[in-house]
Amino acid sequence: MAILGELGTEILIPVCGVVGIVFAIAQWFIVSKVKVTPGAAAAGGSKNGYGDYLIEEEEGLNDHNVVVKCAEIQTAISEGATSFLFTMYQYVGMFMVVFAAVIFVFLGSIEGFSTKGQPCTYSTGTCKPALYTALFSTASFLLGAITSLVSGFLGMKIATYANARTTLEARKGVGKAFITAFRSGAVMGFLLSSSGLVVLYITINVFKMYYGDDWEGLFESITGYGLGGSSMALFGRVGGGIYTKAADVGADLVGKVERNIPEDDPRNPAVIADNVGDNVGDIAGMGSDLFGSYAESSCAALVVASISSFGINHDFTAMCYPLLVSSVGIIVCLLTTLFATDFFEIKAASEIEPALKKQLIISTALMTIGVAVISWLALPAKFTIFNFGAQKDVSNCPVQDVADSCRTGAATNVIFGLALGYKSVIIPIFAIAVSIYVSFSIAAMYGIAMAALGMLSTMATGLAIDAYGPISDNAGGIAEMAGMSHRIRERTDALDAAGNTTAAIGKGFAIGSAALVSLALFGAFVSRAGVKVVDVLSPKVFIGLIVGAMLPYWFSAMTMKSVGSAALKMVEEVRRQFNTIPGLMEGTAKPDYATCVKISTDASIKEMIPPGALVMLTPLIVGTLFGVETLSGVLAGALVSGVQIAISASNTGGAWDNAKKYIEAGNSEHARSLGPKGSDCHKAAVIGDTIGDPLKDTSGPSLNILIKLMAVESLVFAPFFATYGGVLFRYI
Amino acid sequence: MAILGELGTEILIPVCGVVGIVFAIAQWFIVSKVKVTPGAAAAGGSKNGYGDYLIEEEEGLNDHNVVVKCAEIQTAISEGATSFLFTMYQYVGMFMVVFAAVIFVFLGSIEGFSTKGQPCTYSTGTCKPALYTALFSTASFLLGAITSLVSGFLGMKIATYANARTTLEARKGVGKAFITAFRSGAVMGFLLSSSGLVVLYITINVFKMYYGDDWEGLFESITGYGLGGSSMALFGRVGGGIYTKAADVGADLVGKVERNIPEDDPRNPAVIADNVGDNVGDIAGMGSDLFGSYAESSCAALVVASISSFGINHDFTAMCYPLLVSSVGIIVCLLTTLFATDFFEIKAASEIEPALKKQLIISTALMTIGVAVISWLALPAKFTIFNFGAQKDVSNCPVQDVADSCRTGAATNVIFGLALGYKSVIIPIFAIAVSIYVSFSIAAMYGIAMAALGMLSTMATGLAIDAYGPISDNAGGIAEMAGMSHRIRERTDALDAAGNTTAAIGKGFAIGSAALVSLALFGAFVSRAGVKVVDVLSPKVFIGLIVGAMLPYWFSAMTMKSVGSAALKMVEEVRRQFNTIPGLMEGTAKPDYATCVKISTDASIKEMIPPGALVMLTPLIVGTLFGVETLSGVLAGALVSGVQIAISASNTGGAWDNAKKYIEAGNSEHARSLGPKGSDCHKAAVIGDTIGDPLKDTSGPSLNILIKLMAVESLVFAPFFATYGGVLFRYI
Repeated sequence: MAILGELGTEILIPVCGVVGIVFAIAQWFIVSKVKVTPGAAAAGGSKNGYGDYLIEEEEGLNDHNVVVKCAEIQTAISEGATSFLFTMYQYVGMFMVVFAAVIFVFLGSIEGFSTKGQPCTYSTGTCKPALYTALFSTASFLLGAITSLVSGFLGMKIATYANARTTLEARKGVGKAFITAFRSGAVMGFLLSSSGLVVLYITINVFKMYYGDDWEGLFESITGYGLGGSSMALFGRVGGGIYTKAADVGADLVGKVERNIPEDDPRNPAVIADNVGDNVGDIAGMGSDLFGSYAESSCAALVVASISSFGINHDFTAMCYPLLVSSVGIIVCLLTTLFATDFFEIKAASEIEPALKKQLIISTALMTIGVAVISWLALPAKFTIFNFGAQKDVSNCPVQDVADSCRTGAATNVIFGLALGYKSVIIPIFAIAVSIYVSFSIAAMYGIAMAALGMLSTMATGLAIDAYGPISDNAGGIAEMAGMSHRIRERTDALDAAGNTTAAIGKGFAIGSAALVSLALFGAFVSRAGVKVVDVLSPKVFIGLIVGAMLPYWFSAMTMKSVGSAALKMVEEVRRQFNTIPGLMEGTAKPDYATCVKISTDASIKEMIPPGALVMLTPLIVGTLFGVETLSGVLAGALVSGVQIAISASNTGGAWDNAKKYIEAGNSEHARSLGPKGSDCHKAAVIGDTIGDPLKDTSGPSLNILIKLMAVESLVFAPFFATYGGVLFRYI
Repeated sequence: MAILGELGTEILIPVCGVVGIVFAIAQWFIVSKVKVTPGAAAAGGSKNGYGDYLIEEEEGLNDHNVVVKCAEIQTAISEGATSFLFTMYQYVGMFMVVFAAVIFVFLGSIEGFSTKGQPCTYSTGTCKPALYTALFSTASFLLGAITSLVSGFLGMKIATYANARTTLEARKGVGKAFITAFRSGAVMGFLLSSSGLVVLYITINVFKMYYGDDWEGLFESITGYGLGGSSMALFGRVGGGIYTKAADVGADLVGKVERNIPEDDPRNPAVIADNVGDNVGDIAGMGSDLFGSYAESSCAALVVASISSFGINHDFTAMCYPLLVSSVGIIVCLLTTLFATDFFEIKAASEIEPALKKQLIISTALMTIGVAVISWLALPAKFTIFNFGAQKDVSNCPVQDVADSCRTGAATNVIFGLALGYKSVIIPIFAIAVSIYVSFSIAAMYGIAMAALGMLSTMATGLAIDAYGPISDNAGGIAEMAGMSHRIRERTDALDAAGNTTAAIGKGFAIGSAALVSLALFGAFVSRAGVKVVDVLSPKVFIGLIVGAMLPYWFSAMTMKSVGSAALKMVEEVRRQFNTIPGLMEGTAKPDYATCVKISTDASIKEMIPPGALVMLTPLIVGTLFGVETLSGVLAGALVSGVQIAISASNTGGAWDNAKKYIEAGNSEHARSLGPKGSDCHKAAVIGDTIGDPLKDTSGPSLNILIKLMAVESLVFAPFFATYGGVLFRYI
């Protein structure tokens, strides 16, 4: 047995979870000290008001006016985001109820809704009836879904809370602004990872009161938690992704290209919708997404463990090993965060990127030690966990190539960007292949699930860094809209730019872990469904494989077209306002922001349904009509094809974005030869950037969810498919 | 035994092959009657000279001058194309020699270069030594390669021969031009399909003199023919594809976008290079490609048959069933061609497209009967062949969507086009999946190979239609360059446009058959390498699967970037000439065509090596280092992922092309609202079209070859991998 006893495990996990939540609240408290009501005291507290700082920085603005404006804009953004999320949750709520019923009926029907216990599949003895497992699966599905919704919503609230505060702090210097944005990101990171852990832990313990020694049934029903979390993430990502890009593309096409006004200019009617989009897409969507990944990889590891020796021997500590790793991760991230917020101080913009990179390095280094210790404590000695390396990032030199290609127009820019995106899949895929092989060799599918969990264990830090980007971006937007000095904007831009590289690494982690998670879920599904071998040479499997490989294209087609149509509507509305509202271009009249917000909201709600249905229905239809073999093929095909499109879409979009920024920044002789803003070359770069928007922020990130969600859904429904699946092949 | 005796088979196949070759020569003879020397007699012959017709058509041009100009341009194009192909063949020749040596050494080493016979793998008795099979494989590789090169070269010669003749005939009316272009296409179609059949047939018979009853070794060595044909096709497609698109994109970017001069304007220095590109890329590349497909599907069917009952019972007629199907195909296509050239006459441009569609319908209908008859004659009664349906084409309504999206600029156009391309994979993939399942259920892997061969059996007609397009396109270019009346250009444009729809169907056939062929080759490889099961759940297979799915992206990245870089060079040269040659824009000075031709040639030769090496080396490296299981994964991954990219790349490019043409044609109220030429909307459409060029004409078609070639190469080297493969896994 393990060194760490059962009691130790029962104490360690909730304590770590609670510590994480308390830390998140403490960070939030510090951020809240920045007041957005005029005349209040500044964050420092000891110095009386922030007037002192402002004089040092020679801002020379009417503080009261600026603060009032910032507060107004913040309220507008926050209201827009809340109203969108509530509208979305209404639809998603209906879906949840219907899907919960589907889970209950499908899984309950396996033994004809019998209330009698049945022989276990793997261990000896009697297990609980399928009907009750269906009930508990449904309950854990709803729990996962609600936790995911709450995570996304809280993330959005924190982000909108932090935006204006970051703007105001930027007046005092880049260091202050950095800490505010980073702390706010940390609130979200710790809240999500800790609450995910605590809810999962409580659910396991509550379910255990019913299941007792039937761990097979217990952890089978727990998989519903992953499905719930992941399906909400899908809607969050797709809906939020369409929202944000419709607003962004629409605002840019008219504002920057046609009217030649700067980004985030308050005269642009779509500007509030754009800022709302950042919060609902990048923040709420990402929060749900990472929570989903975390829930799924935990469930995959747990379900594999439950039917392996840990589960059969009823070794609770070893069984909880995935949760213990996450617990250690929270403590590690807590220490890491202190390095950014308390141990060091940022004095210049150039120090930001190193500080963020240091976060990644410190958390990885500490986590490696932490995992070694917890493995020694909780597992038999020869157990080790593979810690996955960093994804290849889009480096600087190819971006120059892409920027150069703008000289000959948008077409060559697009061709080079697409080529770069395609090329960027090579190294990550080799890295994923190596880690799959190594972790599988160590501990089969459990090794793969734990590799994924290892990548996600420092999620709190990762999320803090990820969330920090859009917060800074929005802070810049608020500064622009509130008419603050361009120096404020420069500072928030520096924060945003420094976050881009680390955000790209984070995206790589998300994709890499998604690939590992869905492979682990796939493995768990196959063993649960009683499939011995998934032979590519069998036509049933092969047709699944080729159709599965097609699904990411179908899905991307839907989401990209949705963004395109919604952006067209937005463009028309923005043009209409510029043409019909007198004095709008001169800045004497206010645009009608609300109509733009409504267009994004309506479009994304309407358009998220077909891609959502595609992902949610495919496993059900394939499993029921064609059976588990074809479904295995579909899962494998979607996985190997989806990963490529996700990586290339993200990097293509990123390359165009960076090429545009490279030209705009004009930091080198070469960059200046391509600029300035408004030149033909820059226009071509803007076109590329616009094309990249739906690729990198809507299709790409949603594909992660597609591959994971189909796998976890198949796992949840595996007993049903094993019993009733393959109707079509049986009758023809 | 079959109704058709061995003697009947031995007579039927060569007779059909010779009939096809004679028919091709006859068509060539008819085309050659159109004289490109001034003052000679016209095609009709009975009327004295074509002057009569010209008066009827009120051309009012100086005939002699036009004919001389056409002849000059034709010579320039023909010389450029010949010189490019010869340069390419020098490099390819070196590759052939090296690779032939590799085949010999690898395969010869299996039994330690022993000259003693060995026990057979599948049948009882002694088979020929591996050393001699290595020798014969090498020989058939070289034969396949040479046949492919000759096919491509002849195709190019015929096309350049036909271009100017089509232009001149267009003066007499659209019907005359159509027949000339179509006959020329038919020359290529029949020459290729007949010579492929005859060479393969002779090779089998010659090899049989050595192998005698050892059909296992005989047909194993024959697979080299497929590998040879296919590897040349790769270089032809990639090299030609880069050439043609570098010239095309370069010519368009400066000519159409910057200088606002029409397509094919003689003032554009890249115009000759562009026309040369059409001939080496679309014609020679496609000729090699389809020959490769034909050779591979025949080899796949033969090798599967050789180790099934046909081969073991030494039933020569049944064994030759794939060749018999091709023989029937030649006769069917011959009859079909007469419908286009002799039974009916085209009188108006609107009749062309129906006539081409009729070709597809007649050939499919006749072939269905032909296959039924030959199956009845050559096979046991219960054998049937599945005839694959047509691919989904890009229809008109989505093109309007894409055209509409140009209103808001190039970015939305690109987003919509990409989405449309992604969407276009759905129906073809379902169609492929269904045909795989059905044909596998009927006759396992042999069924799949025969389904592919069935699709390719009417190749002569398909090629005629495919080749007809670029010939008409070039004819239009010559008309423009020779300064002929715009009415001539309108007629050739009508020919070209009518060919686009049927060409899209042809492309769909090429991709669909490639998927089937490579699956059949994959099946043959697996059985040859002694792999019992390709289990996705085995990490060795899975890492192969995910890396294999990545290869098409890597390959596309290389080819697209090559086109981009070459196009940049071309743009710079064209700009330089416009800026430095006085009187070029005014038409008083001649541009330096030769430098542009040289840029395309050098770029494509240099740039075709890395993608070629990627495809050729991957199976060797994976098979040797990781073994047959991982290689199986790579093949399956590349197949399921490559098919999607090939389809979406072709259709995305096609949609942009059609959207641009839709706006330019201005045939409806809606289309006119988007135009005219030179409007912002049209400019956005041109950008989309330019991006689509490398997608639809370089990456897309090359991917077909990638998936087939890796499979056939694995098949050829299967005995080596089975003996020595997996070095890396053995030592770690």
